[in-house]
Amino acid sequence: MSAGSQCFRRFSPIPFTHVSVEDEFWAPRLRVNRERTLFAQYEQCRKTGRIDAFKLDWKPGMEPVPHMFWDSDVAKWIEAASYSLATHPDEKLAALVDEVVSLVVGAQRPDGYLNAHFTVVEPDKRWTNLRDNHELYTAGHLIEAAVAHYQATGKRTFLEAMCRFADCIARVFGTEAGKKRGYCGHEEIELAVVKLYRATGEKGYLELSRYFVEQRGRQPHYFDLEARERGEDPAKFWARDYFYCQAHAPVREQKEAAGHAVRAMYLYSAMADLAAELNDPSLLEACERLWESVCLRKMYVTGGVGSVRGYEGFGPDYDLANEAYAETCAAIGLVLFCQRMLQFDCDSRYADVMERALYNGVISGVSLDGERYFYENPLVSDGTHHRQEWFPCACCPSNLSRLLASLGTYAYSQPVAPGLLASGSVRGGAGLRVVPKADPVKGGAGRRSSDEGDAFGVHLYIAGRADTTLPSGAAVTLRVETRYPEEGAVHITVAPARPCEFELRLRIPGWCRKHSLAVNGEAVEAPVERGYACVKRTWHTGDVVELELDMPVERVKAHPNVQANRGRVALQRGPLVYCLEQADHSVPVRHITLPDDATLAAKKVEPQALGFPPDPLPALVVLEGEALAADPSVWQNALYRRACPPKGASGDRRRVPIRAVPYFAWDNRAPGEMVVWLPKG
Amino acid sequence: MSAGSQCFRRFSPIPFTHVSVEDEFWAPRLRVNRERTLFAQYEQCRKTGRIDAFKLDWKPGMEPVPHMFWDSDVAKWIEAASYSLATHPDEKLAALVDEVVSLVVGAQRPDGYLNAHFTVVEPDKRWTNLRDNHELYTAGHLIEAAVAHYQATGKRTFLEAMCRFADCIARVFGTEAGKKRGYCGHEEIELAVVKLYRATGEKGYLELSRYFVEQRGRQPHYFDLEARERGEDPAKFWARDYFYCQAHAPVREQKEAAGHAVRAMYLYSAMADLAAELNDPSLLEACERLWESVCLRKMYVTGGVGSVRGYEGFGPDYDLANEAYAETCAAIGLVLFCQRMLQFDCDSRYADVMERALYNGVISGVSLDGERYFYENPLVSDGTHHRQEWFPCACCPSNLSRLLASLGTYAYSQPVAPGLLASGSVRGGAGLRVVPKADPVKGGAGRRSSDEGDAFGVHLYIAGRADTTLPSGAAVTLRVETRYPEEGAVHITVAPARPCEFELRLRIPGWCRKHSLAVNGEAVEAPVERGYACVKRTWHTGDVVELELDMPVERVKAHPNVQANRGRVALQRGPLVYCLEQADHSVPVRHITLPDDATLAAKKVEPQALGFPPDPLPALVVLEGEALAADPSVWQNALYRRACPPKGASGDRRRVPIRAVPYFAWDNRAPGEMVVWLPKG
Repeated sequence: MSAGSQCFRRFSPIPFTHVSVEDEFWAPRLRVNRERTLFAQYEQCRKTGRIDAFKLDWKPGMEPVPHMFWDSDVAKWIEAASYSLATHPDEKLAALVDEVVSLVVGAQRPDGYLNAHFTVVEPDKRWTNLRDNHELYTAGHLIEAAVAHYQATGKRTFLEAMCRFADCIARVFGTEAGKKRGYCGHEEIELAVVKLYRATGEKGYLELSRYFVEQRGRQPHYFDLEARERGEDPAKFWARDYFYCQAHAPVREQKEAAGHAVRAMYLYSAMADLAAELNDPSLLEACERLWESVCLRKMYVTGGVGSVRGYEGFGPDYDLANEAYAETCAAIGLVLFCQRMLQFDCDSRYADVMERALYNGVISGVSLDGERYFYENPLVSDGTHHRQEWFPCACCPSNLSRLLASLGTYAYSQPVAPGLLASGSVRGGAGLRVVPKADPVKGGAGRRSSDEGDAFGVHLYIAGRADTTLPSGAAVTLRVETRYPEEGAVHITVAPARPCEFELRLRIPGWCRKHSLAVNGEAVEAPVERGYACVKRTWHTGDVVELELDMPVERVKAHPNVQANRGRVALQRGPLVYCLEQADHSVPVRHITLPDDATLAAKKVEPQALGFPPDPLPALVVLEGEALAADPSVWQNALYRRACPPKGASGDRRRVPIRAVPYFAWDNRAPGEMVVWLPKG
Repeated sequence: MSAGSQCFRRFSPIPFTHVSVEDEFWAPRLRVNRERTLFAQYEQCRKTGRIDAFKLDWKPGMEPVPHMFWDSDVAKWIEAASYSLATHPDEKLAALVDEVVSLVVGAQRPDGYLNAHFTVVEPDKRWTNLRDNHELYTAGHLIEAAVAHYQATGKRTFLEAMCRFADCIARVFGTEAGKKRGYCGHEEIELAVVKLYRATGEKGYLELSRYFVEQRGRQPHYFDLEARERGEDPAKFWARDYFYCQAHAPVREQKEAAGHAVRAMYLYSAMADLAAELNDPSLLEACERLWESVCLRKMYVTGGVGSVRGYEGFGPDYDLANEAYAETCAAIGLVLFCQRMLQFDCDSRYADVMERALYNGVISGVSLDGERYFYENPLVSDGTHHRQEWFPCACCPSNLSRLLASLGTYAYSQPVAPGLLASGSVRGGAGLRVVPKADPVKGGAGRRSSDEGDAFGVHLYIAGRADTTLPSGAAVTLRVETRYPEEGAVHITVAPARPCEFELRLRIPGWCRKHSLAVNGEAVEAPVERGYACVKRTWHTGDVVELELDMPVERVKAHPNVQANRGRVALQRGPLVYCLEQADHSVPVRHITLPDDATLAAKKVEPQALGFPPDPLPALVVLEGEALAADPSVWQNALYRRACPPKGASGDRRRVPIRAVPYFAWDNRAPGEMVVWLPKG
């Protein structure tokens, strides 16, 4: 979508509550997330004091001291657990959620404020250092949790409490006289209050988000003023520059992705939300520019983002050393951003990146057993980088869980019923009237999107089903059968309640160079529009669409400006990026080079036979072939040697069998070296 | 040489005063050094206040404040100028040297102490912080300067003053009761007092060196004690760990090269000196181990050392990112270390590394016009790294000048006349008797080295001549004609004063895989011993030796453990490592990859035609051929793409002509990208 064109968001995700995930790839992971991860995270939050912190009984001298952003870890856990309860009721989990929500709500101050640290540890510091103190960040996560909890359980206490918190925030911050013109050093509140607006229909929350986003980076700089008020020299900001928190310039003037990657992703997601809600072309243009900055110049092949360890963030263009930082939360944030951008125009470039991140750099963040996590997701390892059970800064674990528990949300879209975006209640006085959630499945009956007919967009190929009511009022179910990403065949049964016309938009992934499509056994040449094959017809129950995506093993190159990967290739098949792990090799994987003419074959294997745990990987496609490895004997007394003549499997190198496994699965076996980008030759 | 074997040093360099350099490669550089560089450096020292600092008229509040190691910059300049005067008298330079020496000597305190900073700026801090304060380091350079000045001019004032300084130091430091058990945080004094011993014959100076080297790294740790005496917490050492200054363990227990690279090189050089002078096998063994650590695991292909910017030093094994730090002084230090190791047994591995550094990573440190310097010598540049006229920490410029002015010293060796090593005067009382310098050219007549006959070792092939008197008393001149490193043919005319038998040892460089040798036109099969072709015979005046070293263009690979260069090759011809500069290319050099089958031809060109300054490069051999470059148009909207099929000059890459120029010559034309290691394929 180019600047100045119609920017109204035309699509809306079908919520995960209307999507079932029944495949061999995701379903077992989601089960592990429900059955193990969520309980393990609760236990970690409990034993580290994060939950008890809400009791507000900390006294000076006691250990541990509630940390300023502990609340957010618990909030994301509530959000994740709520999503899980919405699709898979579980009494034990529900009881834990009730217990925790009740503690959280109990910690709220009479004026609506809520942060365990600033309530008991530094009560005099409330709102004194937005740059560093994360109060609005934790507020955002609490608000997201409250919306999720309400939508999952129908219980209103937490949501109402968080509305009071948002009201408290709106009383403190804003451009009106007497208010602070502040915004958070770690974005999150911005997208959270859009969610709160969508859940409640209360326009004030949308305005609050707009205020935070518009105010960011303006002069006189709030972080300067605030630092001086604390008696500090603003120039002595520990992170040196406000680009760290995307506050170096007003958001529309930000030309490239900069600073802390998670912060950036949350801001850009909120900007996309606002561009949609406010129909703001200049904000959308900024989003597009920043998305291109990230995805065309600053993203790892795994969908990880953030190469600079020092500030967990973006470096210069093409600065993509394989010792990547690539925080799990940043890849998750990229998924959030892409999903929002995808809804404007159903352009597959956004879904391509979303898929890349989801299948690689996001789920690499959690072990197959669901109880250990990567904070960093490098593309090379000397064998010393391993997942951990928890972190002092534990943002990633529950972020992963909330994403997995709501995975279905990312798979499908349908046109927006325009009334829905603008809908909302008028909030009267102190009371709260929670309107029916803005669920496109139920709302807007009979309204059509303004410029197109009904459509059903399929972004991710996940076996299962999706049920929705299109804007026209037609109830439609899609039943998807596929072994994707193991195979590229997708079999979709369309089941409308009654025959109806709509456009089935099937994403042709960017990695796929050949596809074929058949409807009811007959080949069709569907036009491909913005990366989606569009089959428009009147559908009858039992109509079958067969999509065949050619899925060969591919060598991938990085842009020649990526210094680290010149002369190297990565291996990819379908959406999965592969790596070589030491566990499969008798020579050090760092010594392996891949000749251009080496053949690599995809092979379905029994994961246990390769040493993987039996669960949750029912099957695994590995790539096998022959490559070359340096012969260590010839290097015994040399640091530099004459290169052997071309064709040199002889001389200083030996042929060795190699096996590549999906990147997401690495470090689930014996510790050892790992490499994604293989030198050629 | 293995541990435990005879470690007595068997060879000795023929000093540069007996070697003439008349070739097209070095002679013009040495002329530029004499005629431009030395005067420019004087001017820089003068205008930055380094020379006037010796007037000791600084008062609090005045700018600039004499820095604690300024003295060393001036000292190295005196040393360089003295070497130059020894071979090329120059009244103007001599007058400057006289002026500066007189200022320096005038700054000496009555007790012998000399350091401009600690005399006027922090007089109460003398010897209170050896870890950081460089007092013994500057003393070392002053002592080296004094020895050079005496040897060049015969004038004794400076030498005698520096003997008094050394005496002052010996009164303060040592293991005897009442003395400080200290040693310098920046090594240098250790090798300097060995030079002073050799110049004066005064054994006390050798003992002082031994004391410093032996004391280093012992417990209780002097730097700890000293810090506590200053009221500081030793654990708060800014560089964190004593490995920074090679003081983490006693020297014999140091298993690998560690810490600041220049410091390390100076220490190891001193250890080699002491191993030779004291016939100490365990010290020699430590030197060999450390040399292997450097040269087999931690050295750039250019002979640069030190990859870690943070402490200008050695990282882990094979940690050789191309954004090298590789300080010019460190490469010079490696030459010093190698030359010392070479004398033990005339093993060409030491000469190979010495040559690699000299022809590449050392002389890259100075511009062709002789007036700008690299402090860092990276192997890749984005076009922003350039030589500068001076530095606040200006150790490299005069270090380069002293090396160039004494270059001849590195080219030849002859056996030691054993008496010389042990020789020396007995120093009586306070007086100084300067003995004739321990010059193997003149000394030891009639004595033969214990286990072998006479020999004449040729390490570097430089057109010109070398005159010496072998231990047997035979006066011999070698006249060398060669265009090396432009060509591999070396024509040596042997001219003994009278017919005499000795072994001519001609180094067969490690880079050379085929050589031939003829004496008086007849091919000879000379045995190659430790890398030297040995021609033993009775030589008559006019005997001609012709050595032909095959010098093809070679692709060089790095050890497979070097992460940065997997799948890459460097280009080398003879001793010269090549690089690609942007000035020769229409596509970004970072986009160029080199197919295994690309042909590269050496071509002699007129440097001016390529944009180089006319002086001091009379000719230049470049490498030309065809490679592949990424086609930027196919990358316009992609960060990752499918790699094209093998043989792919088609598709995403284009054939482009490439030209490689010697690494030492880079950044002498229009600024632009540079790369040494080319990705294959």
